[in-house]
Amino acid sequence: MIHNFNPGPAALPPEVIARVQAELPDYRGTGMSILEMSHRSKEYEAINAAAEAQLKALLGLGDEYRVLFMQGGASMQFALIPLNFLPAGGVAEYIVTGSWGEKAYEEAQRVGSVHLRASTAADGYRGLPNVEDCTPDANAAYLHITTNETIQGVQWPAELPLFGDVPLIADMSSDFLSRPFPATRFALMYAGAQKNLGPAGVTVVVIRQDLIERSRKDLPVIMRYATFAKNNSLYNTPPVFAVYMVHLVLEWIKDQGGLAAMAERNARKAALVYAAIDASEGFYSGHAVPSARSLMNVTFRLLSPDLEKQFLAEAKEAGMVGLAGHRSVGGIRASLYNAVSPESAAALAHFMQDFAKRYG
Amino acid sequence: MIHNFNPGPAALPPEVIARVQAELPDYRGTGMSILEMSHRSKEYEAINAAAEAQLKALLGLGDEYRVLFMQGGASMQFALIPLNFLPAGGVAEYIVTGSWGEKAYEEAQRVGSVHLRASTAADGYRGLPNVEDCTPDANAAYLHITTNETIQGVQWPAELPLFGDVPLIADMSSDFLSRPFPATRFALMYAGAQKNLGPAGVTVVVIRQDLIERSRKDLPVIMRYATFAKNNSLYNTPPVFAVYMVHLVLEWIKDQGGLAAMAERNARKAALVYAAIDASEGFYSGHAVPSARSLMNVTFRLLSPDLEKQFLAEAKEAGMVGLAGHRSVGGIRASLYNAVSPESAAALAHFMQDFAKRYG
Repeated sequence: MIHNFNPGPAALPPEVIARVQAELPDYRGTGMSILEMSHRSKEYEAINAAAEAQLKALLGLGDEYRVLFMQGGASMQFALIPLNFLPAGGVAEYIVTGSWGEKAYEEAQRVGSVHLRASTAADGYRGLPNVEDCTPDANAAYLHITTNETIQGVQWPAELPLFGDVPLIADMSSDFLSRPFPATRFALMYAGAQKNLGPAGVTVVVIRQDLIERSRKDLPVIMRYATFAKNNSLYNTPPVFAVYMVHLVLEWIKDQGGLAAMAERNARKAALVYAAIDASEGFYSGHAVPSARSLMNVTFRLLSPDLEKQFLAEAKEAGMVGLAGHRSVGGIRASLYNAVSPESAAALAHFMQDFAKRYG
Repeated sequence: MIHNFNPGPAALPPEVIARVQAELPDYRGTGMSILEMSHRSKEYEAINAAAEAQLKALLGLGDEYRVLFMQGGASMQFALIPLNFLPAGGVAEYIVTGSWGEKAYEEAQRVGSVHLRASTAADGYRGLPNVEDCTPDANAAYLHITTNETIQGVQWPAELPLFGDVPLIADMSSDFLSRPFPATRFALMYAGAQKNLGPAGVTVVVIRQDLIERSRKDLPVIMRYATFAKNNSLYNTPPVFAVYMVHLVLEWIKDQGGLAAMAERNARKAALVYAAIDASEGFYSGHAVPSARSLMNVTFRLLSPDLEKQFLAEAKEAGMVGLAGHRSVGGIRASLYNAVSPESAAALAHFMQDFAKRYG
């Protein structure tokens, strides 16, 4: 058995994989694979509608929100957001707490005027900015945050500070649906599916209706959120298989007990790994300050790069994969998304204790 | 058994579906699904590199070309092409032979200056323009064509006329890899995978190096072909599963005998269905003029919409699905992409003869 700590694409629920495999050659008696099915078929339209409804139910959202299934990953959203919501003469604000927020901020600069409201770059992206530094200008077109920084392992708490009255936009790629949160505070939330939601190849966007109406109309049609909203994500051929899998993962989350159950499960897993760090007397050093620790990506270093190499090699021997830190920062990163089992987290914590004993 | 004539997503080779199913829970001994695997893993990098090499081998292309795996479908290419290759002050030219070319042309108008070099709209997109009307201005930034119009069932011959010396860009979504063609005539070819190449969710772009170098540098990074070329389509998370399937389909094409074998197989299938039209003494009327008939999408009408409804209903009874014409034009459309078997085409032709006998 493999313990999969990949940062994304990442572990999926075994029940979902089994279901996909079982219905792959003949989707529910249609005589063909879901992979061969028209996106205009009633079967796919049912999947598409169900996935939107499931997601809104999990988030407790009503008709004032739409769910869109788009392509291109969070990186495409980095460009589409300023293109759609930053009017000529307007300024958008960004709070940057890690590498992904930095990328979003840089891409927005290629589109229009942006202002860096707050950044924790100076401290190496270990914590969160002071709340008093986070209030955007009242005229800002929007404020963009990253709820969880996958590379640094820094996460905002579910109950965010009140940032002010401008539309709040969040990249939630690596902690979406990992816990309950006040979704109605957001004008737009987006997430690449490949961490908590499904396979790579679809980006889920949850958008408030009024933001759609306010979006720019002079863009290429395919780059407008309004196009996706108006056509129920079926303006052109969607990534059928990826949306189908998101639909199954959403069902799995609901069957597990919804976001509250995910939060409990995720807190339990992260606690095991952070405890192994904290009990190691400095053998392992966590990257994030404790108050900003991510429950999704646990990042830490060992005493030397050589020891980290040894750690990764022995972990792999023990069936634990995906533990190398992002190539831009090195170190170790354990990604503990929804589908990672508590048993995997326990196995890692146990391995860490044992490794520290042997090399400490 | 189902005969799948879906226009896209469409039939896939049964051997490929079987292989995907078999290796779904444990990709080649890795202990995890391909769906759970990092795009930075050596396994995925091998798939990514193999797919590029396979495609170039099938097309007989060398180092002067790159293959990119992108997202967003052909519709995203409609916008990205003028964004990247239409400089300020430049004019791009379009030849429009059906609904998809029309969409490409309209989207380009939202980006910059475009000129309609030729169009067959006036004759209802039944044929091809006169070759003498197709030479672009020598200063045009590029000339865009659609090699096969999926909705109207109109296809350029594989040996295209020489259009002139400007970079030739083609939407080949619905006939890519269906036959040998002089690929080096094109500066850029693109295709949504969901017809001849794999599942929905990846767009294959084949681009000549010099065009990459000439592309605009003031765009969002994610919208630049140069970004995908420089990073081997791994700038951000690619649609891993879709590329994996393209890789398997490319292998299947090669195993069948490559593009020459596809051309032979496709010509044989289309001949069966066109013969049923031509032998029907007007009971079926083909949309395209014979010289422009598509080997991929055979479009025809019956004597009345009611009779077409009856045809579709009885065809479905007989296990033939996906035969309704595009919702914008109605009628009947049989899509006969690479993976559609000769047996399916024969079954359709036989059904058409029988139906004509009973209702003619």
